[in-house]
Amino acid sequence: MRKILLKVQFLGTNYCGWQYQEGLPTIQGELERAIFETTGEHVSCASSGRTDAGVHAIAMPVVFETNTRIISGNIYKAINAYLPTDIRVLSSMEVEGDFHPRFDCVGKTYAYHFYVSNIPLPYLSSTQAYIVPPFNFELARSVLPHFRGKHDWVGFASAKIEVSSTIRTIKRISLSRAGENQYCLRVSGDGFLYNMVRIIAGTIIEVGQGKINSADIPAIIASKDRSRAGKTAPAVGLVLESVDY
Amino acid sequence: MRKILLKVQFLGTNYCGWQYQEGLPTIQGELERAIFETTGEHVSCASSGRTDAGVHAIAMPVVFETNTRIISGNIYKAINAYLPTDIRVLSSMEVEGDFHPRFDCVGKTYAYHFYVSNIPLPYLSSTQAYIVPPFNFELARSVLPHFRGKHDWVGFASAKIEVSSTIRTIKRISLSRAGENQYCLRVSGDGFLYNMVRIIAGTIIEVGQGKINSADIPAIIASKDRSRAGKTAPAVGLVLESVDY
Repeated sequence: MRKILLKVQFLGTNYCGWQYQEGLPTIQGELERAIFETTGEHVSCASSGRTDAGVHAIAMPVVFETNTRIISGNIYKAINAYLPTDIRVLSSMEVEGDFHPRFDCVGKTYAYHFYVSNIPLPYLSSTQAYIVPPFNFELARSVLPHFRGKHDWVGFASAKIEVSSTIRTIKRISLSRAGENQYCLRVSGDGFLYNMVRIIAGTIIEVGQGKINSADIPAIIASKDRSRAGKTAPAVGLVLESVDY
Repeated sequence: MRKILLKVQFLGTNYCGWQYQEGLPTIQGELERAIFETTGEHVSCASSGRTDAGVHAIAMPVVFETNTRIISGNIYKAINAYLPTDIRVLSSMEVEGDFHPRFDCVGKTYAYHFYVSNIPLPYLSSTQAYIVPPFNFELARSVLPHFRGKHDWVGFASAKIEVSSTIRTIKRISLSRAGENQYCLRVSGDGFLYNMVRIIAGTIIEVGQGKINSADIPAIIASKDRSRAGKTAPAVGLVLESVDY
C-alpha cells in the first residue's frame, strides 16, 4: 500500500463541508467517490481538519492509501476526471506510511474575505462575506496585536468542540485592503478550534463597525466567555489557504 | 409616466446574457418580472447594451417607465425583494424622459480578469478566466499602446455584428497584476463592438503566451481580418464595470 498526499482546492458554496454525510454533497464524499472511479478501491480520506459548510480551500492536504499502479505524481490528474469542477486536486505525491495530515500539522493559515456595502453585491458574493457599514479599517486593525500569541481560546470556539486543550498560538494576524471597500483578514496559527477563525473575524469586524469597543478586546479574550466575543462571521468569507508540516 | 434609471449588478454565471429570451434565464427577463411583481406593470427594460451569456456587471444602467407611486430613490429596494440573489439593483433615480442608456452613453469601462495555472482553480473560477502557462506579463503589457486610439475594429468583432460603423476609440487600456498569477485587463472606450473586449483580451493573452508575436500586433489591427486576431476569451472573465453619460 502506498500513502498518497493530495492538495485539494474547492469552492465550498455547494457543499455541506468536508466530512462525509450520507446523502449530502461533501468534499470527502466527492473525493472518495472519484478515487473509487479512478482506482476501484473504497478508500477513506483523511484531511488536515474539517471545514464547515460553505467554507473554501486553496490547498487542503488529504491522504488515502492505495494499491493502484498509477504513478503517484499523476494520480491527481486521473481523480480530477471524476470530480465536479468546483473541486480540483492540484497535486499528488507519495508520503511516509505514518504521515497524518491532521496530527502532523504544525501550522495553518486561513484568510477571511469581506466587503462593506449597504446591499449584498452579487459579483463579490462567491467568496466574500457581506458587512454593513460603517466599518473603520484602522480601528479594526488596531486590535490585532491582542490576538497574537498563546491564549486559551475557549471563548472563541463553538460550544460543539470536543478537544483536550483549548490553548492555541496565533503566530501572525493581519488585516489588509483588497479592493474598494474590500478587506482580507489573514490568520496563521498552530491550530484553530471549531469556528475560531470565524469568531475572531466576527469580533474584529464588530470592532470596525463600532459594535464592540476596541479597548474591551483584551478583557474579552481573557474572559473565556463566548457570549462576550463577536458573532460567528459567515462561512462564505473563509478560506483555508495553507497547512504546514 | 416617470422614467427610472437603475444601476444593476449581477453575476452572469447562471444567465443566458442580458437580452430576454422566452423560457431562458436572462437578466432582462428577471428584472422585468421583478418590476411586474413590484409595480403590477408589464414594462420593457432598456440597458446600455447587451451582455453575453456568463458575462458579469458591476453597475449596468437600465431604464424603464412606470406609473408606480413608490419614491424613485426607493424603487430599487422594492425590486430587490423579487430578484434572485445573483442580481441586485444598487440604486434607482428618476431621469429625463428622453434619456436612453444606450444612445446617450459616451463611454464604457470593462475589466477582463484571468489567472494562469496548469489546472483550473475552483476558488477563482466564478469571475476569472483560466489561462494555461507560460504567460509573460511584461510582453503582454508591451502591446497595449497599439490598442489605444481610434481604429476600425471590424477584425476584433464577432461576425454577428450589425452596426453602421465599426470605428471605435479606446481611451484607456491597462494590464495589472491582481494577485499571485492573477491579472486584470481594463479597457475604456467610447463603445465596443460585439465580442470586441473578449477578442482584444484573447489577443493580448496570446501575446503573453507567445502564440502571437508582439511585433505583429499593429499589422493585425490594421488588417481588419478577424482570423488574424486572437481567440475570443471566455465570458467568465468579463465584467462591465461602468458606463458614462
